[in-house]
Amino acid sequence: MPDPAAAAPRWALHPDRALPADPVTRPVARQILDATRNLPIVSMHGHVDAGVLARDERFDDPASLLVVPDHYLVRMLVSQGVPHDALGLPRRDGGAVQSDPREIWRAFASHWHLFRGTPTRFWMEHVLVEVLGVTERLSAATADAAYDTIAERLAEPGFRPLALLDRFGIEIIATTDPASADLADHADLAARGWGERIVPTFRPDAVLHVDRPGWVDDVALLGDRAGVAIGSYRDFLRALEARRWAFVDAGARATDHGHVLADTTPMAETDAAAVFASALRGDVDPAAARAFSAHMLFEMARMSTQDGLVMQLHPGALRDHDPHVMAMLGHDVGYDIPVATEYVHALRPLLSAFGHHPNLRLVLFTLDEDTFSRELAPLAGVYPAVRLGAPWWFLDSPDGMRRFREAVTDTAGFANTTGFVDDTRAFLSIPARHDLSRRVDAGFLARLVVEHRLDLDEALETAVDLAYGLPRAAYARQTTTPDHPHPPGA
Amino acid sequence: MPDPAAAAPRWALHPDRALPADPVTRPVARQILDATRNLPIVSMHGHVDAGVLARDERFDDPASLLVVPDHYLVRMLVSQGVPHDALGLPRRDGGAVQSDPREIWRAFASHWHLFRGTPTRFWMEHVLVEVLGVTERLSAATADAAYDTIAERLAEPGFRPLALLDRFGIEIIATTDPASADLADHADLAARGWGERIVPTFRPDAVLHVDRPGWVDDVALLGDRAGVAIGSYRDFLRALEARRWAFVDAGARATDHGHVLADTTPMAETDAAAVFASALRGDVDPAAARAFSAHMLFEMARMSTQDGLVMQLHPGALRDHDPHVMAMLGHDVGYDIPVATEYVHALRPLLSAFGHHPNLRLVLFTLDEDTFSRELAPLAGVYPAVRLGAPWWFLDSPDGMRRFREAVTDTAGFANTTGFVDDTRAFLSIPARHDLSRRVDAGFLARLVVEHRLDLDEALETAVDLAYGLPRAAYARQTTTPDHPHPPGA
Amino acid sequence: MPDPAAAAPRWALHPDRALPADPVTRPVARQILDATRNLPIVSMHGHVDAGVLARDERFDDPASLLVVPDHYLVRMLVSQGVPHDALGLPRRDGGAVQSDPREIWRAFASHWHLFRGTPTRFWMEHVLVEVLGVTERLSAATADAAYDTIAERLAEPGFRPLALLDRFGIEIIATTDPASADLADHADLAARGWGERIVPTFRPDAVLHVDRPGWVDDVALLGDRAGVAIGSYRDFLRALEARRWAFVDAGARATDHGHVLADTTPMAETDAAAVFASALRGDVDPAAARAFSAHMLFEMARMSTQDGLVMQLHPGALRDHDPHVMAMLGHDVGYDIPVATEYVHALRPLLSAFGHHPNLRLVLFTLDEDTFSRELAPLAGVYPAVRLGAPWWFLDSPDGMRRFREAVTDTAGFANTTGFVDDTRAFLSIPARHDLSRRVDAGFLARLVVEHRLDLDEALETAVDLAYGLPRAAYARQTTTPDHPHPPGA
Repeated sequence: MPDPAAAAPRWALHPDRALPADPVTRPVARQILDATRNLPIVSMHGHVDAGVLARDERFDDPASLLVVPDHYLVRMLVSQGVPHDALGLPRRDGGAVQSDPREIWRAFASHWHLFRGTPTRFWMEHVLVEVLGVTERLSAATADAAYDTIAERLAEPGFRPLALLDRFGIEIIATTDPASADLADHADLAARGWGERIVPTFRPDAVLHVDRPGWVDDVALLGDRAGVAIGSYRDFLRALEARRWAFVDAGARATDHGHVLADTTPMAETDAAAVFASALRGDVDPAAARAFSAHMLFEMARMSTQDGLVMQLHPGALRDHDPHVMAMLGHDVGYDIPVATEYVHALRPLLSAFGHHPNLRLVLFTLDEDTFSRELAPLAGVYPAVRLGAPWWFLDSPDGMRRFREAVTDTAGFANTTGFVDDTRAFLSIPARHDLSRRVDAGFLARLVVEHRLDLDEALETAVDLAYGLPRAAYARQTTTPDHPHPPGA
Repeated sequence: MPDPAAAAPRWALHPDRALPADPVTRPVARQILDATRNLPIVSMHGHVDAGVLARDERFDDPASLLVVPDHYLVRMLVSQGVPHDALGLPRRDGGAVQSDPREIWRAFASHWHLFRGTPTRFWMEHVLVEVLGVTERLSAATADAAYDTIAERLAEPGFRPLALLDRFGIEIIATTDPASADLADHADLAARGWGERIVPTFRPDAVLHVDRPGWVDDVALLGDRAGVAIGSYRDFLRALEARRWAFVDAGARATDHGHVLADTTPMAETDAAAVFASALRGDVDPAAARAFSAHMLFEMARMSTQDGLVMQLHPGALRDHDPHVMAMLGHDVGYDIPVATEYVHALRPLLSAFGHHPNLRLVLFTLDEDTFSRELAPLAGVYPAVRLGAPWWFLDSPDGMRRFREAVTDTAGFANTTGFVDDTRAFLSIPARHDLSRRVDAGFLARLVVEHRLDLDEALETAVDLAYGLPRAAYARQTTTPDHPHPPGA
Repeated sequence: MPDPAAAAPRWALHPDRALPADPVTRPVARQILDATRNLPIVSMHGHVDAGVLARDERFDDPASLLVVPDHYLVRMLVSQGVPHDALGLPRRDGGAVQSDPREIWRAFASHWHLFRGTPTRFWMEHVLVEVLGVTERLSAATADAAYDTIAERLAEPGFRPLALLDRFGIEIIATTDPASADLADHADLAARGWGERIVPTFRPDAVLHVDRPGWVDDVALLGDRAGVAIGSYRDFLRALEARRWAFVDAGARATDHGHVLADTTPMAETDAAAVFASALRGDVDPAAARAFSAHMLFEMARMSTQDGLVMQLHPGALRDHDPHVMAMLGHDVGYDIPVATEYVHALRPLLSAFGHHPNLRLVLFTLDEDTFSRELAPLAGVYPAVRLGAPWWFLDSPDGMRRFREAVTDTAGFANTTGFVDDTRAFLSIPARHDLSRRVDAGFLARLVVEHRLDLDEALETAVDLAYGLPRAAYARQTTTPDHPHPPGA
């Protein structure tokens, strides 16, 4: 058998990839894409570690950069029988796992065919070809050559994290940080002049769900950071407010909330205080914990009306579906599964209270595309506070993004969406994700143009909005109050 | 900066708008559209006020005709920060709101870009260009000129309501009228020869939901109209039956029912009577009220088997999502939000009892497109009584209508749908809505033809059915009984 | 009026039917289809009667072969007012129904237009034109000629059931057989050399739902077949295990489970035993019955880890929606309606226990396409045991299959699907269904190619996988144990 790699043409990205193919629409889509392809990247929600940016060290190796931490990739390999251990996922019991990055890379490369038709394929092709200069399509046969090419590239100074921000044209990137984060990396970056470009995001999940293991310790840590000895629910609110202002001072634009339910029903303050006190004593009732989480979403919105932080809500993921995998490997290894999510009743308390407040911006995400036309677009299409985030996670694909535009534009238009939000921990794939989004939006807008539902000048302007203007505007802090007031609760 | 309006080409509607763009499908779609574009309009469900038609006065001004009452339009402007007051929506507290129609029009025109990609854009473009002769694309710069053009047009005799019926080619239009309507406007119109062309629709919602504010008074009014002193549940049924026959005599073809749930579970008569009696005394339990509403849907179907009125069911809108807006502005200002809707269990009692009855025609609508393929098409594809109405409200768009055909045709075919039903209170947009529907259906049928799934002669015949034959047939009164029997309950 | 049949061109199937029409995509789709059109048919889930194959007699007549047993067809005719009696559906009360097959055929043929745009139209056209040689489009006018052509064909030896397996290129076909089946027909077929080509499927529904009428008798019959006197829950498990091994010995690859819910929550053994004992005494609580059904799904998975039978789950059909029709005509006459189905919580017990077991293969089907992207693809995209079956029943159509690929490929890829599974009792339509599936997949893959999301060589390889390789692999018995061990429970 001849070496297939030898015969293969040089691996390259087609300039028209992910654009509609019909000969009437494609040239229009290309023209629209031309208006956005070189715009800066606004990356307002992601999971790149602030420490990685602050330390600015070279990345270790291809596997630990591209394979091990990417749960999209890990889950697909596992689904086809590749053991977690072979992919080098660290075990919580310290058991031996594959530690040779080249072997891990081979396990991935030899299963490249599994990713056909998936967004991982699209992103990774961009990363390998465009960012890293790999020249042969990935396979068992070409795995080692690709590994060597990547390793070489990662050794170059131009591939350190901060240099990549420039290479990628990232104008601003937001990290995600727990409420008790010390923000030292951000302070460090700010001191070096990166403060406007790398900003934190306030994510208080750990302290809002009183039934999470370790909650008592997390609350204590929150108090330490805030300089508040938390003995009561009032102290707790005061500490949260203080921390939010600390994040504002560190450049934060937004908060982020991961709840299974979108419920925002407030509790009476005495009831909330009782649940909190009880939880501090270690006594947690599941129903009370759920009610408290919902209540705290309402409180977060209230605080946003004071400090202007944009509120992002990411509901509907049932985390850690397999408890054995969770026990062995921990969170974020591919076992979070979407569930049906209800927004209309759930958000009614929050929106009735703050849906017209000039300082609230609520960005809604979903894993349940049934809610696109039924719930999300109708809510965003009337409440001034609401914007729809980009298709999230399992929906962040060419067809998922197309279905999103087709389903929400009727009722929400374009202006009630945030434009693209990438939400990734795969740093090198950020340009690929924005590129794909610009292509899909170009294709959608082109269809409107060739169906004479939109004029070309409007489509061009809208494309720029979606790629750049809307994310910048959506994640501006929404406040008429001065930038550094005394925290209201202090 | 040059005046953009000055440079702009004359505003015009493209003849191929909303047709598929690919060069194989478009000519076939055009050919199919040619078969329907000039067919009369059958408008069997809408919210044009019978009084407007009976008085036949000239419309006041562009804003009060096109902006203030259009909740699609109002909600989009509000979602982007335009206050309700600036749009002239009357406040229930009598507080001052914008009263200059030109200012209201400017608020709309200057936000024209918000409607890109929405059906409002499509409809309004048709209204402005085709019906009213506006010649420049709407914007802040062109607002006044458009206003003047429209105002001039509205002053012409040919733009009075009844003249528009002719101009629009409306063969028949149904209004929506409460169960206690005196139908005087319809009597008046009938006396002037319009009785076959303008017909009422029986909408008893106000008296079927015993927990609605004002229910006791509404029941009393119903009794007055029916000539029945309503002291019991039996009287109530008798009054409803009498009113339905009065509507039949006034030309009605159909009833219409807006319930949050599609539930049709009947109650024992004694239980229903007890809930009714209790409610008359002002004592209403929410669960009992819901059960009574469901029971009354069942009763409405039973009555339809006697008087042959087509029964329309519009479930799944949570009305008045924001209670503060409701308190300030009342109903129908854009705050009705769809919720997930269940049909299979909910309709089982009704369909088991009457689903094969030759006198029942049940037309189902939905705001939850998840039910298209899962529930609605399977029900319509087996029960002779059931027809699927057109995509409703938030789904009445190019992509919404396409998804409807793609999802329901497999199992329901075309003949189990009603063809197009416009459901609008925006009188001037009726032709635009039918035009759009004919375009989308032409595109869908053309795709079947070019994919060799349907012959062209079949597609042409089906297009005519969808535009004209099916709505005429679906809304024919379904009865083998004589036209004016004694009301069964009398 | 001229005879339309006389003027009509010869009825023929277009070679490009169901392929995308745009001029860029179609040639690529055609090229991909060329790679699969002549592959053998792997038909691993269907409802062809083993007795029909074993007896190998000629089919009676066109109506009893093609109309009476086809519930897709019957339901559409009924929905437009054709009475069941006119279609010859046997009544349980023995009442007279149409018994002249030619009259039944005419009722169908004269309503041919109802099937426009439906998959029944597509399949039936293939059956009539390609398999049976009908030359004029079906209508009232051509009904008799078509009837005669078909009747003539059915009289030929080449149209007996086993000959058709060759004509159709069916490499293997699975029947569906109750747990208590004697498998005599399969033994007979095996003795004649058909054992590798015609295999049974173990379907224990009748004995897993303790609230089904006749359950006690069915359990007794199960015991008889298994040679186990079933007096307890333990006996019951032992009998099921024995029967499963009997099916394995008869060549079975799979089990099949039709439950309304996908729930797999196990019970404590003592609780299960108590429900079973109570049910044997005729004392059945509905909630306990539901819990027992869920528990038994869990047990079936456990048994699959021992005997390696592939487990198929078909949830979400509410059977016999109209109880009067059920009383008059029995099951499977078109009144099964899909309901919303939840998989994520429901399957968690089963998948936590066995989702990574090397001997479990769980094939999931759905009637609720909302679950495609939200639940099914995420589950199949991580658990090694899970595969997604093909779009089922109401979704087994050109657009349904396209939506399936568009929704699941992002997260599940191709390899986590089974490829095509036809699931039909309409024997003559099997080639049509596989042909359609290959066309739709060719169109989907071609779109990926022309959008430069997949290389052509990959698309060609994937098309062959979907048509042939994946169904063969998915339905291989998953076991590392020897083929004929002692049943574990014996």
